[in-house]
Amino acid sequence: MFPEVNFELPGWVEEFVGDPDRVYPTEEDRMRLAVELSRMNVENGTGGPFGAAIFDLETKRLVAPGVNLVTTAGCSIAHAEMVAIMFAQRAVGSFDLGAPGEPPRELVASTEPCAMCFGATPWSGVRRLVCGARDEDARAIGFDEGPKLPDWESALEERGIEVSRDVLRGEAASVLRFYAESGGAIYNSREG
Amino acid sequence: MFPEVNFELPGWVEEFVGDPDRVYPTEEDRMRLAVELSRMNVENGTGGPFGAAIFDLETKRLVAPGVNLVTTAGCSIAHAEMVAIMFAQRAVGSFDLGAPGEPPRELVASTEPCAMCFGATPWSGVRRLVCGARDEDARAIGFDEGPKLPDWESALEERGIEVSRDVLRGEAASVLRFYAESGGAIYNSREG
Repeated sequence: MFPEVNFELPGWVEEFVGDPDRVYPTEEDRMRLAVELSRMNVENGTGGPFGAAIFDLETKRLVAPGVNLVTTAGCSIAHAEMVAIMFAQRAVGSFDLGAPGEPPRELVASTEPCAMCFGATPWSGVRRLVCGARDEDARAIGFDEGPKLPDWESALEERGIEVSRDVLRGEAASVLRFYAESGGAIYNSREG
Repeated sequence: MFPEVNFELPGWVEEFVGDPDRVYPTEEDRMRLAVELSRMNVENGTGGPFGAAIFDLETKRLVAPGVNLVTTAGCSIAHAEMVAIMFAQRAVGSFDLGAPGEPPRELVASTEPCAMCFGATPWSGVRRLVCGARDEDARAIGFDEGPKLPDWESALEERGIEVSRDVLRGEAASVLRFYAESGGAIYNSREG
């Protein structure tokens, strides 16, 4: 009656990500991966122009990547950040990426989180959020970031989540423009 | 490298929901299902004390149920509302439950949505949100509703989503207390 719901990363992701032992020393290195995931997602036609990734801050290795799969998975919650959280928790085997004994982990998002992904960030257990393009860069091409707390950054900081913004913002925003210029669907829901 | 992520409803749900042609004429009827799902989820030990469901407002039939699967699916985003949205979109075959030509649909939640589920509501395409227990009833047993907009109700109304609150609030809140009294895990993330 209610068939199961499955999420799979597009086939190109694993190949693109490559060596699982690769170290990403700086937040720019880590953001570069998220931005390249957003670009590849557009080029491969596998979803919207958003990429994300979760890293282990001790080893500086990737835990899981995420790309926007809304249109291809047929699921409005499959934003890049949510996909990265689901795959990271699957990889780690826990719903709490910040559980006792676990290394601190970081969520890197090619664009600042929408209202949903913002709300999901504290539940994920990450200790740090790194953002590339700003909300206004997403809005500039017609995407809606939703009804977010005006002081969303402080709300995360108050919950012990460090926020770093504008990391490779120009590169991240250029993928948004590339998507819009190539006629990508702006798929805000409830279009009826 | 990144195994797929699957969500399955617990086995008892399908049997409990029963006849797919059943009609739920009033919002109390629809809330009763969500509250009973929350209670059954506790009794069966399949997750936290939260239930949800999405209904077709033309036929008044169930589109998909949802229960909280955070601890059992090992995923912090598997709140009851998110699960109902994922299964409803899977059932309907679209990431937009409010797409052109689709009937209006309603999300019924046994407790008011947390910050994440609030943010997910506009993306889902539903036209109406019905809530049972209040945020403060969830907080009273130690659950965190996250950094929500103080005027979250108006923010949804402004987006064309009608909000109805306090529907069977007493019954819904009693399930929360039952969960706490029976020693259920209060699993807010980042406990490390």
